[in-house]
Amino acid sequence: MTDHESLQAHLLEHAPRLSEKQTRLLNFILDNLSYVAFASAGEVGRKAGVSAATVVRLCQALGYKGYADFQKHVRETFPSYTAAIERVETIEVADAASLVERVFSLNVHNLSETAQRISQEELEAVVEAIYKARSILVYGAGLSASLSLFLAQSLKILGFPAHTLLSGGLDVALEGAFLDSVDLVIGISFWRYVKDTAQLLRRAKQVGASTIAITDSPVSPIARLADHKFIVITESVSHSISLTAAMSVLDLLIAALLYRDAKRCTEALRRVNSSYEESGSLIMNYSR
Amino acid sequence: MTDHESLQAHLLEHAPRLSEKQTRLLNFILDNLSYVAFASAGEVGRKAGVSAATVVRLCQALGYKGYADFQKHVRETFPSYTAAIERVETIEVADAASLVERVFSLNVHNLSETAQRISQEELEAVVEAIYKARSILVYGAGLSASLSLFLAQSLKILGFPAHTLLSGGLDVALEGAFLDSVDLVIGISFWRYVKDTAQLLRRAKQVGASTIAITDSPVSPIARLADHKFIVITESVSHSISLTAAMSVLDLLIAALLYRDAKRCTEALRRVNSSYEESGSLIMNYSR
Amino acid sequence: MTDHESLQAHLLEHAPRLSEKQTRLLNFILDNLSYVAFASAGEVGRKAGVSAATVVRLCQALGYKGYADFQKHVRETFPSYTAAIERVETIEVADAASLVERVFSLNVHNLSETAQRISQEELEAVVEAIYKARSILVYGAGLSASLSLFLAQSLKILGFPAHTLLSGGLDVALEGAFLDSVDLVIGISFWRYVKDTAQLLRRAKQVGASTIAITDSPVSPIARLADHKFIVITESVSHSISLTAAMSVLDLLIAALLYRDAKRCTEALRRVNSSYEESGSLIMNYSR
Amino acid sequence: MTDHESLQAHLLEHAPRLSEKQTRLLNFILDNLSYVAFASAGEVGRKAGVSAATVVRLCQALGYKGYADFQKHVRETFPSYTAAIERVETIEVADAASLVERVFSLNVHNLSETAQRISQEELEAVVEAIYKARSILVYGAGLSASLSLFLAQSLKILGFPAHTLLSGGLDVALEGAFLDSVDLVIGISFWRYVKDTAQLLRRAKQVGASTIAITDSPVSPIARLADHKFIVITESVSHSISLTAAMSVLDLLIAALLYRDAKRCTEALRRVNSSYEESGSLIMNYSR
Repeated sequence: MTDHESLQAHLLEHAPRLSEKQTRLLNFILDNLSYVAFASAGEVGRKAGVSAATVVRLCQALGYKGYADFQKHVRETFPSYTAAIERVETIEVADAASLVERVFSLNVHNLSETAQRISQEELEAVVEAIYKARSILVYGAGLSASLSLFLAQSLKILGFPAHTLLSGGLDVALEGAFLDSVDLVIGISFWRYVKDTAQLLRRAKQVGASTIAITDSPVSPIARLADHKFIVITESVSHSISLTAAMSVLDLLIAALLYRDAKRCTEALRRVNSSYEESGSLIMNYSR
Repeated sequence: MTDHESLQAHLLEHAPRLSEKQTRLLNFILDNLSYVAFASAGEVGRKAGVSAATVVRLCQALGYKGYADFQKHVRETFPSYTAAIERVETIEVADAASLVERVFSLNVHNLSETAQRISQEELEAVVEAIYKARSILVYGAGLSASLSLFLAQSLKILGFPAHTLLSGGLDVALEGAFLDSVDLVIGISFWRYVKDTAQLLRRAKQVGASTIAITDSPVSPIARLADHKFIVITESVSHSISLTAAMSVLDLLIAALLYRDAKRCTEALRRVNSSYEESGSLIMNYSR
Repeated sequence: MTDHESLQAHLLEHAPRLSEKQTRLLNFILDNLSYVAFASAGEVGRKAGVSAATVVRLCQALGYKGYADFQKHVRETFPSYTAAIERVETIEVADAASLVERVFSLNVHNLSETAQRISQEELEAVVEAIYKARSILVYGAGLSASLSLFLAQSLKILGFPAHTLLSGGLDVALEGAFLDSVDLVIGISFWRYVKDTAQLLRRAKQVGASTIAITDSPVSPIARLADHKFIVITESVSHSISLTAAMSVLDLLIAALLYRDAKRCTEALRRVNSSYEESGSLIMNYSR
Repeated sequence: MTDHESLQAHLLEHAPRLSEKQTRLLNFILDNLSYVAFASAGEVGRKAGVSAATVVRLCQALGYKGYADFQKHVRETFPSYTAAIERVETIEVADAASLVERVFSLNVHNLSETAQRISQEELEAVVEAIYKARSILVYGAGLSASLSLFLAQSLKILGFPAHTLLSGGLDVALEGAFLDSVDLVIGISFWRYVKDTAQLLRRAKQVGASTIAITDSPVSPIARLADHKFIVITESVSHSISLTAAMSVLDLLIAALLYRDAKRCTEALRRVNSSYEESGSLIMNYSR
C-alpha cells in the first residue's frame, strides 16, 4: 500500500463521525493533497469555500493537533526523489549475478501485485470505451512516453483510430482544443507526475470525453480524472521506477481488445501485414 | 528454444564430421539463413564462393535428401505472421478473468526464461561499453521504438551521452554517416525484424563502433552484428509479441549502470532533478 | 524550366507523328524516367509490354541515333548531387555581405517564379479537397519533414483533422494500411526524392484517396501521383535546395483556407487560443 | 519598427537625464516588459529592489502622468492575438488570384526587410560559434519546431554535431541539465513566445554556453538571452505569422557555414551522400 493510500484509509476511518460539511471538506482535501501539502489553512479554506477555522477544526476531528500537524503528515506521504537518490548512494554494491536475480524477482512481484489489482469490470469497460471511441489520444510524458508510443502503435495495428503525441506543452494544448465527447483520452503517468498529462485529462473531462488512466495509485493526480483506471506496481531496485508491469498491462489490454472481436481485428492485421510487405521495410517478407 | 536455435543445434551436431571447406560453408549458411530460405543452391554457392554441387553435397552430409529438402526445413524455422493471425481466429474466446491470469503468468514465464539467458559477463561488458562510449545511439523501429525511447531517456537521466531516433530511412542513414570507432550503437529488434536496425548496426561495425543488440534469438539478423547481446523471450497470447521481459532487461541494465559508479550517477540525477524542479513541469515539485 | 520539363517538352513535340502504340510507349517512358535512365531497351520493352526493337524504333522516331543516345539524354536531365558538391568546392568564397545579397535575391527570384506557376484553379481545388477530407495526412521525409510539420500544425490550428508522421518506413506503411477514399494525403518531396513519400501517395491513389503534391517539377515522382500539385522553385547558392518559396506556398494555402470560411476558422482559432492560455505555455498570456 | 522597439527607443531618449539608480530601474523594466505589463508599481519595485515611490517617480521622469499611464503604454506595445483573430473576421474576402499576389509580395517585403537587418558581424560571429561548439542544440516550439527541425538536419548534413528536440517540458529540462560552457543553444521563437524556449536559453546562459536567437524583435524574450541574434520579419496576411523570411535566414546561415570551410563541409556531404545511397531510401540513387 502506498503512503497516499494509507493516509486516505486512515482519514476515511473518521468519516462516519464527521458532519456533512466536514465530509465535503475532507473530500476536497483528498482530491487536492498536493495543494494541501503547501497551502495554509486559510488558502485551503478559500478554495473549498469554508473558513480557516473550519479547516483547523476538521484537522482536530481527524485526530491531529492542528493544521500544521496534519500538513506535516500529508507531506510525509509523498515519495521523495531526493530520498530515492540518497538511498542509491548508501546501497551495498551488488555483484552482477545477484542484480539479475534481484531485478527480475522484483519484477515478478510487480507483475503479481499488479495482476491482483486488475478488476475484470474495469478491463471490460476499458475495452468497450476503446471500441466505441471516434478517436483515441494516448499520452504520457517523460519515461511514460515510451508506453504511450507502444500502446498507440499497437492500437493502430489492430485498426483503432489511435494516435499519440511525443511533444508536450503547446502541442498538448492544441490537441485539447478540439477534443469532444466522442473521443477517448488514455493518460499514462507515474510518480513523479507530469503536469501536461493531468491537464489533458482535465480538459477531456470538461468536454465530456471518456478518460482512462494507467497510473500507480488510486489517488494519483490522473487517477482522479479518469473514468476507468489500471493501477500498476512500479517498484524498482534503482532510483527510478520499473515499467515492466505496465508493459504487461498493455499486453493484457491488447489481448482483450483482440479477443473481443477477433474477426474485425484480424482483418486489420491482414491489411497492416500486406502494407508492411509492400513497403519492403521488413527483413523477412514472407510467410511459410 | 526457438526454431532457429534448434535448427542451428541440429546442424552443428554434424560439424565434427565435415571437411574444413564444408564447415566454412555451414557457417556461411547459419549466418545467412534468411537468404538461404529463398536462394537457389547455385546462388548460395556463388555468394559463398563454392559450386552448387558443393552446396548440395553439404546438405546430404547434414542428413537431407538434397538442397530443396534442406531449404524446406530452413523455411519452417521462421515464424510466420500469417500463421499467427490465423491462430488468433481459431482461439477460444477467453473470459476476462482467465485472460488476466494467462497474460500475466506468460509474462512471468518470459521474465524467468529471459533471466536465465543473461550472462553475467555479457552484462558487465555492456556496462563497460556504455561507460566508455563517446556517444550512444539507441535505435529500434516499429514497436521497438518504445523501448529505444525509454532506454535513451534513462541513459540521459544518468548522465550518459545517449540519443535515439524516432524516424527511420534517411535519418538513420544520416546518423550512420558520422559514426566512428568511439561510438556505441544499441539496436533493439524483435521478429518481424526491420531492415533499418540491421543496416545501422552493419554500418556501426564497418566503422569499428561498438554494437549491442537487444533481440529475441542468437541468430536474429541483429544478434549476428553485435559485440554483445541480450536475448529476450517475447511470447504472447495474442498475434503480437510481448515486450514485458525486454522492459525488465532495461531495468537491469539501468540498475547495473547505476551501481557501477553510484557517485557519478547520483550527481547526474541531482542535476536532472534540479533542472526538472526549475522547469515547473512536474506536479510535485518538492522533496520531504 | 528544369531539365526534366525541357526533355518532356522536347519529346512531346514529336507526339503528333507517333503511332498510337508509340504514344503509349512514350507515356510509359515519361512516367518512368528514373527507370529508363538505367534499364536496357529490352528491360524497358518488357515492362511496357513491347519488344526491344519497338523501343529502339521509338528512339529513332524521336530523333535519336538509338536507345543508347536517347538514354544518355535522359540521364543528363537528372540533377547530380555529386556535381552539386563539386560546384561548392570550386566556388569563389564570397564575403559575408555579398552572401546576404545573393541568398536573399535568389530567394526573391524563387518566390516570383513560384508565384507565376500557381494556378488559381489548382489552389481552389486544393482548398476544397482539404475542406471535405475526413482526415488529412501530411508527409515529407528528410528536409521536407520540416514543411510537413509546419503545415500539419497550421491545419490543426485552423480546426482541420490533420496529422503528420515524423518517422518513415514501417510507420508510413502502417498509416497506408488504413487510408480510404474519404482521406487526403499531402506529400511534400523535392529532389533528391525519398521513396517513402512516393509509396504513400501511390497507396493513397490505389484506395481512391485524394492526393496533393508539393514538389519541384511537374514530372517529379510524386507530381505524377497527385490529383493537384504546387510546383515550387528551390534554387540555392549552396549544395542543397532552398525551401523558402515552399514556405510561402504554405502561407498562401493557409490564407486561402482561412478566407474560404473565415467564420469556421476563427471559431477554431478562438478554441486554440483559449486552450493555449489555459496551458500556461506561452510567455504572454493576454490580449490588450 | 515593432511597437516594442519604438517604446524602447522612446524611453531611452530620457536616459541621459536619469540618475544612476533610475537608469538601473529603467533597464530592469526594459528587461521585464511582459512582467511590468501586469504588475503593480509595488511589485515591480520589490523585484527591482526599490520602493514603489521610486517606480512612480521614474514614470514621471519619463514623461508619464504616473505608473498606470506608463503601464497602459507598455501593454499597448504587445501584439494581441485576439485582435489578430478579429481582423480576419472583418477582412474583405479576396479572390484567389489577388491572394497569391498579396501573400507573395508581402513575403518579398519580409525578405528584403529581414535582409536589411542582418549584420555582417553577427553572421560571422554565429558561424564561428557553430564551428567551435562541442555540441549544438537547436530548439523551437509550436510552429517554430519546423524551422528547428530543418536547421538541425541541415547542420548534421554538413557534419556539425547538432540535434533538436521535438518535445517540450520535461525533455527540455533534461537537455538543460547537462549543458555546459562548450555547448551552443540556438533558440527559435516568434510572437507568441513559448516559455520552454526562453527557459532553455536562460539555462544555457547560466552555465556559460553560447546562445543564438532567431526571433522577431530585439526585445523579444529570447533576444535578450542570446549572445547573437537574427531578427526576422514575419508579417502575414492571415491570423498567423509567416516563416518565409526565417527560412531564408536559415538558407543564408547554411551557405555561410559551407563557404567558411568548403573542404571540411564537402567531405561531410560526401559521407552523407554515400550513406544515403547505401540506404536505398532515395528514388534516384545515382549521379551523372
